Amino acid sequence: MPVVIIEMWAGRTEEQKEKLIKGITKAFEDIGIKAEHLNIIIHDIPKTNWGMRGEQASKISP
Amino acid sequence: MPVVIIEMWAGRTEEQKEKLIKGITKAFEDIGIKAEHLNIIIHDIPKTNWGMRGEQASKISP
Amino acid sequence: MPVVIIEMWAGRTEEQKEKLIKGITKAFEDIGIKAEHLNIIIHDIPKTNWGMRGEQASKISP
Amino acid sequence: MPVVIIEMWAGRTEEQKEKLIKGITKAFEDIGIKAEHLNIIIHDIPKTNWGMRGEQASKISP
Amino acid sequence: MPVVIIEMWAGRTEEQKEKLIKGITKAFEDIGIKAEHLNIIIHDIPKTNWGMRGEQASKISP
Amino acid sequence: MPVVIIEMWAGRTEEQKEKLIKGITKAFEDIGIKAEHLNIIIHDIPKTNWGMRGEQASKISP
Repeated sequence: MPVVIIEMWAGRTEEQKEKLIKGITKAFEDIGIKAEHLNIIIHDIPKTNWGMRGEQASKISP
Repeated sequence: MPVVIIEMWAGRTEEQKEKLIKGITKAFEDIGIKAEHLNIIIHDIPKTNWGMRGEQASKISP
Repeated sequence: MPVVIIEMWAGRTEEQKEKLIKGITKAFEDIGIKAEHLNIIIHDIPKTNWGMRGEQASKISP
Repeated sequence: MPVVIIEMWAGRTEEQKEKLIKGITKAFEDIGIKAEHLNIIIHDIPKTNWGMRGEQASKISP
Repeated sequence: MPVVIIEMWAGRTEEQKEKLIKGITKAFEDIGIKAEHLNIIIHDIPKTNWGMRGEQASKISP
Repeated sequence: MPVVIIEMWAGRTEEQKEKLIKGITKAFEDIGIKAEHLNIIIHDIPKTNWGMRGEQASKISP
């Protein structure tokens, strides 16, 4: 039943997302939680909507 | 004051969203919380960003 | 598959939580989403950790 | 290390987002948390996806 | 109507929380959002439940 | 910079949490994201606060 919510910058490829989902699922399986009980949700965040070091990430890492 | 955040697949119609908001509001009213104190927020998640059974939902339920 | 996360003040009874879970589940069923696909998660928040009108809720509604 | 997630209506300008990020960062600095340890994430929510007073916000504040 | 959710290590004092709530509220007021429309929610996270640099924060910063 | 928030039932051991944090960190490293840019946050949820199949999880899986 666990739910995983990921906040990350938009721009990852479908291959990266797929690989990430598989890797996180494996991490849960390794502690005894079955893949079919897991929901993983990715929030793609534009860099203009991400603040770090007091700035928009779009200004730091354009 | 309660806040409800809903993560679900993108693709629901405006009518479904409206009905869902009304239904959830009623569920809170039934335990004594007024509609004007409630915020409900829907996150539309593309199936490519949703992992289940170790796969992207877009591959399981295209 | 939807996930519902609820932020609300700590202090609700078990009966209120049960009723709320049933009511929200019904709201999803009414738009065609089955109860077994739904996860509902309640975060009990102490009033000292809730800010409203620029104050801790513990000071406004002790 | 703190993470701040903001849910708000879509439509704020880049200038408003920048100002908000700077202001929140300052609020953390004022309690002794450094800007470089802070991540701030803004979720832009369309009004059709926001429920208040039992309605979609798009109907209350078009 | 904005909602702010803060994830941070448990252990902040009531004074720090109050100051943080006031500071964040001011940051929203400075972009034209009124204090009475804002909810701020603090999640106190034990360091054993916080992962950074591949470790529990409790091991890095006991 | 990614942030991972995990909602799961309370009751996991420190060893399981540590293993989970390491496994998820590795999943991000495998798509090119460094461990030092990642924050992982675990929310321990009592089963009375988790709804599934229209019931509290405490009633389904005591």
